[in-house]
Order: sequence, then C-alpha cells, then structure tokens
Amino acid sequence: MTIFSRDEYEQRVQATKQRMEQQGLDTLIVTDPANINYLTGYDGWSFYVPQAIIVSLILSEPLWVGREQDSNGARLTCWMSESTIKPYADYYVQSVVRHPMDYVAQVVRGYGLDHGRIGVEMDAYYFSALSFHKLVQGLPDARFADATLLVNWIRLIKSDQEVALIKQAAAIVTRAMGTAMDVIRTGVRECDAAAEILRAQIQGTEEIGGDYPAIVPLIPSGVRTGTAHLSWIDRRYEPGDTVNIEIAGCVRRYHCPLARSAVIGVPSPQLIELSQVVAEGVTAALDVVKPGSLAEDVEAAWQKVIQHYGYHKASRLGYAVGLNYPPDWGEHTVSLRAGDMSELQPNMVFHLIAGMWLDGYGLEISETFRVVPEGVEVLTGTERKLFVLEEPQALCS
Amino acid sequence: MTIFSRDEYEQRVQATKQRMEQQGLDTLIVTDPANINYLTGYDGWSFYVPQAIIVSLILSEPLWVGREQDSNGARLTCWMSESTIKPYADYYVQSVVRHPMDYVAQVVRGYGLDHGRIGVEMDAYYFSALSFHKLVQGLPDARFADATLLVNWIRLIKSDQEVALIKQAAAIVTRAMGTAMDVIRTGVRECDAAAEILRAQIQGTEEIGGDYPAIVPLIPSGVRTGTAHLSWIDRRYEPGDTVNIEIAGCVRRYHCPLARSAVIGVPSPQLIELSQVVAEGVTAALDVVKPGSLAEDVEAAWQKVIQHYGYHKASRLGYAVGLNYPPDWGEHTVSLRAGDMSELQPNMVFHLIAGMWLDGYGLEISETFRVVPEGVEVLTGTERKLFVLEEPQALCS
Repeated sequence: MTIFSRDEYEQRVQATKQRMEQQGLDTLIVTDPANINYLTGYDGWSFYVPQAIIVSLILSEPLWVGREQDSNGARLTCWMSESTIKPYADYYVQSVVRHPMDYVAQVVRGYGLDHGRIGVEMDAYYFSALSFHKLVQGLPDARFADATLLVNWIRLIKSDQEVALIKQAAAIVTRAMGTAMDVIRTGVRECDAAAEILRAQIQGTEEIGGDYPAIVPLIPSGVRTGTAHLSWIDRRYEPGDTVNIEIAGCVRRYHCPLARSAVIGVPSPQLIELSQVVAEGVTAALDVVKPGSLAEDVEAAWQKVIQHYGYHKASRLGYAVGLNYPPDWGEHTVSLRAGDMSELQPNMVFHLIAGMWLDGYGLEISETFRVVPEGVEVLTGTERKLFVLEEPQALCS
Repeated sequence: MTIFSRDEYEQRVQATKQRMEQQGLDTLIVTDPANINYLTGYDGWSFYVPQAIIVSLILSEPLWVGREQDSNGARLTCWMSESTIKPYADYYVQSVVRHPMDYVAQVVRGYGLDHGRIGVEMDAYYFSALSFHKLVQGLPDARFADATLLVNWIRLIKSDQEVALIKQAAAIVTRAMGTAMDVIRTGVRECDAAAEILRAQIQGTEEIGGDYPAIVPLIPSGVRTGTAHLSWIDRRYEPGDTVNIEIAGCVRRYHCPLARSAVIGVPSPQLIELSQVVAEGVTAALDVVKPGSLAEDVEAAWQKVIQHYGYHKASRLGYAVGLNYPPDWGEHTVSLRAGDMSELQPNMVFHLIAGMWLDGYGLEISETFRVVPEGVEVLTGTERKLFVLEEPQALCS
C-alpha cells in the first residue's frame, strides 16, 4: 500500500540516522507532516492534532505516534510493522489536563530512549511551544537539541521515482493553468474561476489523479495583485484586470508549482514592459542552473537583468520544492537568494518564482525546474509571457 | 474592505482586553490565524511564515506584524490605521541567522511593552517552539504567560452577522453534499468525485461564493472508511463500497461542516443497523440541546442510545466550530464529551459528528447546529440517513 518500496523508505531512515550520528543525536522526534510521510509513508489530514515519528539509532523501524482514530490510517499507509503503531486515546485531544506529547514522552520512556540526546524540530509547523514544553517535562533525563530541517535536507535531492511523481504533477499543473486561462473572463466571479482551477488540479490526468496541493490557488485580481498571498473573493472580473495565478499540481503529496499573470483586455504599457523584463530575467536565471552553480548565482543572474531595466525585487527568487502538506509546498532548505551558497546538484528541484508585487499592480512568472547533469530541465512548457485573455473587441460587447 | 463593521472588531478587541486584565496580562501576542482574522480582519494564505498581532492594554488598535510582501494584503483586509502595519523584511524568512519573531520582539520593545506580562498562545498552530524561544530571547525583561485559547473562548458565542455567514456556508455544504451523492458511482475515480465536490464548495451559491474550507474533503471509501482522516486516492469506486463524506461550506472563513455516509449498491445488514442506531443517537443528542444544558449532557444522550444497541464510541461527539484556517475548522474550546461542563448558550455553534470508525468499515452522520433560546437550530436539511447510491439492478450492468 505504500507509495515507494520498502527499500526506499529504509534508505531514507538510514540517511536520517547518519545525520543523527553526525549531530550526536540518539533519538529524533519528527513532527513535520512531510518528514513523517517521507520516513514512513504516513498520509492523512491528521496533522491538526499532535503526532510524531520517533527515530532511534537502536530501533530498526521508526515508531508512529498518533490519535487512535488515525491508527488504521497508519496501518494502511506506513511500511513499518504493526508493533510500531502507538495510538493515543481520544482524551488527549484538545484537553486542558492532558497533552498528546505526554504520550509521546511515555513511548520514548517505554523504549528506554529517555536518557540520551533527543533532536526535535523546533521550528517545524505543528510543533507548538507547548508541545516542546510537554516533552521537556515528560523527559527530564533527556538532553534536547534543535534538529529543525535535519530530514528536510535529506529530501533536497530527489530519487528518480520522486522526480517521476513531480513530472506527473507538472502535467497536472499545465492542464490547470490552461483551465485558468480559459475561464478567467470579464463578468466571471473569482470564486467560479477558482472552482474550475481546483477541479482541474484534483481531477489530474487520465493516468493519475491529483492530490490536494499544500496551498490553495492564489489568484488575486485588480488592486489585490499588489500583494502575494490573497486567494479569491466573490468579485467579478472587470476589463483591464490583471490576475496573478499561482497554483501547483500535486501527486502523492509531491508538488510542481507554476505561476503566470494574465490581463483581461488590453494590458498597460507599464505591465507589458514589466512582463518582458521578468521573462528575460527568468530565462537568464535558468541559464545559470547546472550542477556546481550556487543558489545565489541563479538569483544574481536575475537581478542583473531587472536592475538593468531599473526594477528592484527584495524577496527571494525561489526555493526547493517537493513533498509537502499545508501550509507550504516549499521545503525550507535552499533559497535562491543572495548569501545562499548551497551548491546545486542533480535531482534537486526548485520553484523559481519571479513575483513582482508593486503598489496597486503586480506580475508573476515562475518555473519549476530540476537540476540535471547537463544543466536545467524546466518541468512545464507553458509560455513564459503575460497572457492576454480577451481580444480588445470583446470589451465593447 | 473589512467583512464586519469597525464597531464589531472594536468590540472583539475590547472583549480581549477584558480577559487580558482578568488574567493579569499587559500585552497579548496572537499567532493563531483565526484569532488574527477575528481581531483585525486580516486574511491571506501567509500563515506559512510567522506573523502576529500585538494587543496591548495601552494601545487603542492592535499591531499587525507580517512579511513585507503581505503588508498590502493587511492594508486591504484590516480595519486598523496604516501606522499599525509593521512589515518585516524578506531576509527574515526561512533564514538560519534571523527569525521573524526577532522582529516581533523588536516591535514590542519599540512600543515599550517589553516590561510587562505578555500572553502567548503556547499551543496554537504556527506558534513553533522556536518562535517562543526567540520571543523569550528578544524580550528578556518580560514575563510570559500561556494565553492559548484566550481569544478562542471569545469566538465561542457568535454575533448575528457571524451566524448569517455560517448559514450561507450551510447552503453551500448542502449543495456540495448533493453533488457528492450525484457523482459517487461505480467506476468513478475518487479523485474525480473529490474534484466535483471541491468545485461545488468553491462555487458556492448564486448569492455568495465559497471560500476554501480549512480541511479538504475527507472521503475515504471501502476499507479506508475504518479511519477518520484520509482524503481521496485514484481508486475507482466498486459495487458495495461505503464512502464517508466529511466536508464543509465556508464563507469568509466561517464554516458549516456536514458528514454523511453512502453505499454504492446494497448495504450490508450490519451497516444498515449501524446507520439506524447512529441516526437515532444523533437525534437524541440534538433533543438535549438548549441554553443551560451542559456539553457533556449532549454526548450522554448519544451514548445512552448507542450503548442500548451494544455500540461503543470513545472519541468525542463534537466541538465548537466557526471561523478558521487550515488545518482545522474546530475552535478548540468546548467539546461534546464526558467531563466537559461548559454550559450551552445562544449563538454557540457546534459540529456534532457521530463518526463510527470500526475495523474495516465505518459510518458518519453529522449536523452543525446553533443553540437558540428555544433549543436547537440544525443548520442543514440533508436527510439523516445512510445514502444508497445505486439501484441494485445497476450492479448487474
């Protein structure tokens, strides 16, 4: 029932244990849902209650700790044996007297792992300040160390099977972006456009269905394009609107994001110029991608182009992407920005997003790419341009 | 541009300040995205980076602290004046040398609020262990107190305008559940059914568009109905499958959840019996709802019925619901379960979900209800039964 072979999961756990040894950790308590999935296969919308994977140098398989009503989900989706499934009773859930991390601590003690050095993901989603406090209380003999991103860094280089899933996600996002360009028209409500886009994301292709992306379609229009993370409202599109469309295809939790901007009717000369600069900058950045280039080199190539034309972008140009859960499809490891000296290696996958959010207007062109021995493989083929969605005469109807 | 009047937001902030005074807090740092929205109107898919609202007894308006590229979103959605918008630079984002909470601490210091007693939401989503650690480091003169759920408890009793939004969400979920019952058929892929359900959730009604619900459709089928939180896969429905459908309508972030189970073809006698018991139990529980009843009374009425028939359910029967963001639409305050002595009051809204997750099969019937002076107002009218989706003869085709 697992997505990958037992071998692949065991290699991932082995790589985790190697890093644990390097960092002097005896035990690792993993709470990031993507890292839990990566190491065990576990998949379920249960990350709204505390759950954890316990990896120990002296245990051959990770232990799964989660809510009792999700334990059958663990049995259906994890590769490990039945004895590793450690469900907690429902009275731990959203209680003022008990906390699920009390139970995690109990499991750690039960395996005699409470005297060593324990890594926790201090800055992971869903690992609350109280979760940590409860672990510290429940494991007084342990020493804690911050192991945020320990597993994320292993995820940075994808296996060929992971790349294959991201390519299926690329086919889905290509289709969904086509749907967006077909449905966004004067008079249509933003919510109705969003509904069709989401439908295309989830239907997927004939070969493979779409999973829910970690972020909903971000499709601000008009004045709302001047900011990065607004979703849709009820507003009807008007002639002259710019619409930013940032979406992803998702297959088995693996993402391929893609962003484009469109204008309904006649774009302003200002927006046409911006789109040409951004497209040129993106192409220049992609030209730099090859094994051995640094993450900051990619961003520098982009900056050179846009600064030549007098533009400025303070925010990073992109980030590593792949397996994830809400609220983010980014992996939080390598960023394409000044100062990030990470060396690009084959089978790293990035979302390069040239988003310009200016006062009252904005524009986005992005590409998801894979580093390959020869240089770069861009995963989607959507034209790198500002889309114009209605012929001028349509505005007069 | 705000959803509610300035008066309503100011009342909410006033109620928050009252509770702060009762708990001896000078300042409250709010990080739960639903609480941020509740107090300021702020809406955006930006909770994947740290953000906060600072409420102080000596400030008339809350301060918004978030990422620079989201500050225009704050200007578009918040009620406060421009001077309360405190954006942090992009180099704080996913950096190993800086943390956004360093900047939050700086803002707190800048307003001279760092010598008092500061409440933080220790167990809120997106308030990581590291976020707290950074605040403690950055505010050495402050004393910290756990204020988890302080704002959530204010949210428990809805205004009439909030109820009106939940009723619009009820119309949407009714429609989306109808879509589910129309599209789930032998041979259809789960992902294709999910796509149509999501489309209906987002399209909404002619009057109002749907917002993204805080949880994706949970629609396990077959053996996967034995657990609570699986979404869809590529699997094609087969004759005899049971499908659990747990979805919500969402309007302006206000939710109305609804769950039903369906069977494709002929239900087993076991499942028919279970559905009748569950429906009877839900009705008995709703009959107890009125101002002055306790949360645990509602659950006790349910238990009495199912135990009479020899069934058992350990997990809670429901929870307060309303405004929320992923990963949960529940408010984390009152639960319908033994030991919860909260008194029901008018304009509380609950999702009562009778989910039975047994080995290899399961069933769900839920209702979202509002407490009214006369007793209970059930917000949707979907029949309280197991849905049978194909006539027996269809199985022979």
